[in-house]
Amino acid sequence: MIGAVAELTIKEGSQAEFEKLALEMEAAVNANEPGIILYKLFKVKDASNKYIFMEQYKDASAVEAHRAAEHFRRIGKLMGPHMDGPPTITRMDKVS
Amino acid sequence: MIGAVAELTIKEGSQAEFEKLALEMEAAVNANEPGIILYKLFKVKDASNKYIFMEQYKDASAVEAHRAAEHFRRIGKLMGPHMDGPPTITRMDKVS
Repeated sequence: MIGAVAELTIKEGSQAEFEKLALEMEAAVNANEPGIILYKLFKVKDASNKYIFMEQYKDASAVEAHRAAEHFRRIGKLMGPHMDGPPTITRMDKVS
Repeated sequence: MIGAVAELTIKEGSQAEFEKLALEMEAAVNANEPGIILYKLFKVKDASNKYIFMEQYKDASAVEAHRAAEHFRRIGKLMGPHMDGPPTITRMDKVS
């Protein structure tokens, strides 16, 4: 199993619009990607403009399918103007 | 729902012993804490000594129960000598 923690910093004032799009992304990923185990949006406490997607994928091909998905590209493009720089992504392997 | 990402940096050479204890922690938490939704150990790619626990709790009292649990204190104490400094914990709230 593969994990990822994607930290997103957004522009001040973009919270409402960003959350709407990011929840759309969460719903689309969970509904359409059979290789997804977990894909959930969180807001970092004590920070007004930081969010984290906690992500788990069955395997490397599930990660590829995620990146190639139409909804990922389409909603990601809409999220772009609200972002304050690129996301910081930590990639991981499950320890077992 | 409350989320946390706990990043642990361990001493070089401690990997095997650390992983054994951290998997014991994962099993004990999942078996004994009804307020836990997710508690999984990952190893950061491209880093020999960084690990992440991805954590999700039902509510604030589940977080308190986790911190107070006998297994958390006991296994945490055994993990201590393998750690290279305190963990970095990012606390979050689920966006909904």
